[in-house]
Amino acid sequence: MSHFSFAVHATDGQARLSQLDTPHGPIAMPAFAPVGTLANVKTLEPRDLRELGASLVLSNTYHLYLRPGHELVQRMGGLHRFMGWEGPLLTDSGGYQVFSLAHRRALDEEGVTFRSHIDGSSHRFTPQRVMEIEQALGADIAMVLDECAPPLDRAYNEAALLRTHRWAERCREAHSRPDQALFGIVQGGIFPDLRLRSAEFLTELDFPGYAVGGLAVGESKEQMYATLDETCPALPAHKPRYLMGVGAPEDIVEAVYRGIDFFDCVLPTRIARNGALLTRNGRLNIRNERFAEDTLPLEEDCSCYTCRTFSRAYLRHLFKAKEITGLRLATIHNLHFMLRLMDDIRAAIGSGTFTAFRDAFHARHSITDQAVRHAQRQKRSASYAPNP
Amino acid sequence: MSHFSFAVHATDGQARLSQLDTPHGPIAMPAFAPVGTLANVKTLEPRDLRELGASLVLSNTYHLYLRPGHELVQRMGGLHRFMGWEGPLLTDSGGYQVFSLAHRRALDEEGVTFRSHIDGSSHRFTPQRVMEIEQALGADIAMVLDECAPPLDRAYNEAALLRTHRWAERCREAHSRPDQALFGIVQGGIFPDLRLRSAEFLTELDFPGYAVGGLAVGESKEQMYATLDETCPALPAHKPRYLMGVGAPEDIVEAVYRGIDFFDCVLPTRIARNGALLTRNGRLNIRNERFAEDTLPLEEDCSCYTCRTFSRAYLRHLFKAKEITGLRLATIHNLHFMLRLMDDIRAAIGSGTFTAFRDAFHARHSITDQAVRHAQRQKRSASYAPNP
Repeated sequence: MSHFSFAVHATDGQARLSQLDTPHGPIAMPAFAPVGTLANVKTLEPRDLRELGASLVLSNTYHLYLRPGHELVQRMGGLHRFMGWEGPLLTDSGGYQVFSLAHRRALDEEGVTFRSHIDGSSHRFTPQRVMEIEQALGADIAMVLDECAPPLDRAYNEAALLRTHRWAERCREAHSRPDQALFGIVQGGIFPDLRLRSAEFLTELDFPGYAVGGLAVGESKEQMYATLDETCPALPAHKPRYLMGVGAPEDIVEAVYRGIDFFDCVLPTRIARNGALLTRNGRLNIRNERFAEDTLPLEEDCSCYTCRTFSRAYLRHLFKAKEITGLRLATIHNLHFMLRLMDDIRAAIGSGTFTAFRDAFHARHSITDQAVRHAQRQKRSASYAPNP
Repeated sequence: MSHFSFAVHATDGQARLSQLDTPHGPIAMPAFAPVGTLANVKTLEPRDLRELGASLVLSNTYHLYLRPGHELVQRMGGLHRFMGWEGPLLTDSGGYQVFSLAHRRALDEEGVTFRSHIDGSSHRFTPQRVMEIEQALGADIAMVLDECAPPLDRAYNEAALLRTHRWAERCREAHSRPDQALFGIVQGGIFPDLRLRSAEFLTELDFPGYAVGGLAVGESKEQMYATLDETCPALPAHKPRYLMGVGAPEDIVEAVYRGIDFFDCVLPTRIARNGALLTRNGRLNIRNERFAEDTLPLEEDCSCYTCRTFSRAYLRHLFKAKEITGLRLATIHNLHFMLRLMDDIRAAIGSGTFTAFRDAFHARHSITDQAVRHAQRQKRSASYAPNP
């Protein structure tokens, strides 16, 4: 991987301050990648992502394959050029989306046949085919095709893991683009022995980076964290570690604490479009009546464009009136929140204070939870109080 | 109107290069005002409007009265502060929207009772009430409550005109905000004698500016232009003239030619959200299959963010995939187009070349129309051609 290099600059416990250099620039880690499913982070533009400080954007192979088609993207000069984002890009393999199709897919040793969620048309992904698609798209980081098994089903995970390993080998063989790094994906559900077996097998294949897949899809937070406790130490220390599809702030702090280097998740952008805003004191839903005449910004000490410019009352008005601009302003705030969290995490690791940072983070969340419960009790007693 | 001043800097035929100074800054005219119905130009932010060079934004009294309510906006510091736009603002009177409600409204001498398009609740607008609402909103320019009659119905226009004039007097009496200019609205359909009577009556009331209302709602372009030919010379030369709800580029050129100073219209923003893009060579619909692999920008010599950054193929992909960003990028282009058109018009008047500008504008449109018809003929004959 001559176009790529990865260096760990500092550690604090298992947490790592690192940098991955890619053909489209460096990614300071721990990092969070916004998701641009259809070659576009919903409601935003590349200039917004740059202003927000995003260093890596994820796009979805399954979705781009169906629409507009990977060959069209290739003819348009590749995914970076097509979407106007000249920074680092990652494409997933489509495995997760295909396996989410449930009754619309059929699996065999060679691959998976599925029906499009758009028009029901039949398609087939094999490891070779997915490599063809991802290389046509041309992201800086591509992912192997894997089977994303239900994390609590041991028998399913055992069977799926062997096939996922064979597919990883085939992907490795089929992949040839020197300006694209192909990452392996460790599976095995919540079962430590399966995770270790997977980490060991994939380490042998010598991928330039490793993802932990199949988490945040049904297991408890404790099970997720325990799985990371087992898996991270089994991955090569000199290669980046990617926790796929995880983006709740508390999970990011806990995963970094266990040695994860980067993340992607639709959470901050998706909940933004539902009016749920991330703040240091927890989430608030801007549609709530109590914000109707609130002149404060979403978050008082936030420096994002939304908080610098608008009141909660205005944001609420936009959401109530179904104005598109509201979705955008909420997205800007939530991504700003996530990217500032990553800044803070990197600063804490760099200064050797990550443990204190983590404690303070959880204390704030726990205090907030208590405050919310207290407020709810107050409200209940108020509404039960007899009229004067 | 001590907070306001209007000066005509140059004329070219009837066309005027002028400037209206308002408490929130100057408006170089001829000007085009984007429409922000609900205190927001759909898909955009104030910083976008500034970057595009918008100098005046229109917002709708009827819509803001219903949602979020003018009193809420007032308590939030007024419309400028609420929506984060510190430039000049204009509110219409709600007359047009209320009269568009057809069977959901009942008119009498004192005002109009109507049902909300949102929840069917009953409301009443009188001249006094509308002045109360517009003064609470606090735009730089407010409009009198008028009755917008069908332009071709003489009897209707005769009856409506007298009432509209009485309402204009009442608005004038009820209006007191010194930092807000109240404009009169000339009505009278396509009937020159009614228009002249209206212009004369309203001129007597000495409004600081005058709108021509009730056009572009059913009459032909020729009838609209003829009405402007009659009406503009009857308006005071030292006051700004506003043609309400007109925004087709060719109509703007023709109205400026007849002495109109500014315009508002939802056209460029609304058609953008349908994928219709304004270009110097006419409109194009970005959803068209022929753009699927088109690497050109929407318009080759356009300097807007959309054209600087993206291909037609990418824009088409966003529209086909129903991505919100597509609506926004199209809106940015169309508003840029309109505001550049106004720049060009002002430059042409300033250099005394507006007649040549107008001829060239129509020649280009006429050539485009011919080219379109030619292409359509080609296509028809192609589709009728026998298979080889």
